[in-house]
Amino acid sequence: MFRLLNVQGRAALQAGDQWHDLAALSGDASLADPMAAVARHEELHAHQAATEGRAADGEVDASQLLPCVPSPAKVFAIGLNYQSHAAESAMELPPAPLTFTKFPSCLVGPNADVVLSGAAVDWEVELVVAIGTGGRNIAEADAWNHVAGLTLGQDISDRVVQLTGKPPQFSLGKSYDTYGPIGPALVSVDSFPDRDAIELWCDVDTERKQHGTSADLIFPIAHLVSYLSGICTLQPGDLIFTGTPDGVGMASGTFLTEGQVIHSGAAVIGELHNRCVAG
Amino acid sequence: MFRLLNVQGRAALQAGDQWHDLAALSGDASLADPMAAVARHEELHAHQAATEGRAADGEVDASQLLPCVPSPAKVFAIGLNYQSHAAESAMELPPAPLTFTKFPSCLVGPNADVVLSGAAVDWEVELVVAIGTGGRNIAEADAWNHVAGLTLGQDISDRVVQLTGKPPQFSLGKSYDTYGPIGPALVSVDSFPDRDAIELWCDVDTERKQHGTSADLIFPIAHLVSYLSGICTLQPGDLIFTGTPDGVGMASGTFLTEGQVIHSGAAVIGELHNRCVAG
Repeated sequence: MFRLLNVQGRAALQAGDQWHDLAALSGDASLADPMAAVARHEELHAHQAATEGRAADGEVDASQLLPCVPSPAKVFAIGLNYQSHAAESAMELPPAPLTFTKFPSCLVGPNADVVLSGAAVDWEVELVVAIGTGGRNIAEADAWNHVAGLTLGQDISDRVVQLTGKPPQFSLGKSYDTYGPIGPALVSVDSFPDRDAIELWCDVDTERKQHGTSADLIFPIAHLVSYLSGICTLQPGDLIFTGTPDGVGMASGTFLTEGQVIHSGAAVIGELHNRCVAG
Repeated sequence: MFRLLNVQGRAALQAGDQWHDLAALSGDASLADPMAAVARHEELHAHQAATEGRAADGEVDASQLLPCVPSPAKVFAIGLNYQSHAAESAMELPPAPLTFTKFPSCLVGPNADVVLSGAAVDWEVELVVAIGTGGRNIAEADAWNHVAGLTLGQDISDRVVQLTGKPPQFSLGKSYDTYGPIGPALVSVDSFPDRDAIELWCDVDTERKQHGTSADLIFPIAHLVSYLSGICTLQPGDLIFTGTPDGVGMASGTFLTEGQVIHSGAAVIGELHNRCVAG
């Protein structure tokens, strides 16, 4: 088990409310880079164990956390991957994982501000997979062996740009700077009681908007990894935003406004708190 | 002026038929990385000048060349950006640059094999912009100052996956491994007699398929840079595939088959030669 953090640009392992600098802990300076840490995910279990009884290097302060996977080579994102969300979107269930991208420059840390691009900006809480071991044509039965861990993400979307603009820009509408908060930690797969049934939720201010479980994914995580690896060579650090359950703003015509705070959470992983600010 | 090559993973500058190792030439080991070289594009003009009279480090051998920009953080690609191609596709002209991605793992060198994914794989010769200096909200008048240079690319596309599969996967259909040959060199903007009118062409075996000029771009390069930077922070090394002129296979129902060679060319930049092999 491990919980990987990005503390102001340096990889760290979380133990309770404290963090341990990974390079210092391991005696390996090259593990200071969070991307290197993800690629060497198999080593992190032993380093996490070594935090026991060691003096920590700091207290976890969410405002200091950057994206736990800061510079992925690819960010895949899957549309309509919960039946409930497909239904509220009045869309047919896709026969294969509907794949677009969030350009990686949109990624921000777990408590970063979201800079609104317009009047129809929406929330989508999602589990996010981080590839740890690359590969091509990965069998579904082997897929979890390629996963470094899971984190939580918000697939913030400008619905006008994404869907009703001329032309609709599916990927760009989800790629404005700050539209990809992730974190707080990258959590190893063995940390979850059931890796295929993880509860997640989203509140806007004090109102519960979304509440689901990844047990309801139309295309489960192992299938996504296998499917995508049949087209592209997967690389360590590649991310997959796996889709969102029902309860997005678009379904009721309610969108984010300045000053609101999006609170997202997932079992075991933790929470994101993102304040909306004017663009 | 400069011509930046990636010779087996190391940045080099091309002088005629020869190349000079950039780290050796500059005395700066950190310039061995082609991505670092792109980010420091302004320095390359002086290093290129210093190749005069210096003994070269090798002869240019296209089979040794890797992508001149090997690991961009983002690859934008623009659809329907030549009126002639929009017409042959029976598509309306888009009112803004239709933007998708080629996931960066598809990039290969100028003479790499293209591994066919099916029976409807198509060619699209394109000019490719490499960002040199990042930024956000870049004005169109300032856009060229953010460009490191231009190279040539093939936006290879599986038309079934892209357009007629269920669901159509616009970005994935263009992102199979090997579907993004680029090169042979990244050529500085000041190398072109007219940066907004560059001739490009594509032959399949001995048959001329495409022949156009970037003077016919619906959204010229400066507009693309400005438009995209209004949504995403651009970073050094980001690529923009700018669209293809008419003459793609889809228009006549003719697709690539095993053993064919795609010959692509552009004025000043040079040529790509990519053999199609079975998947």
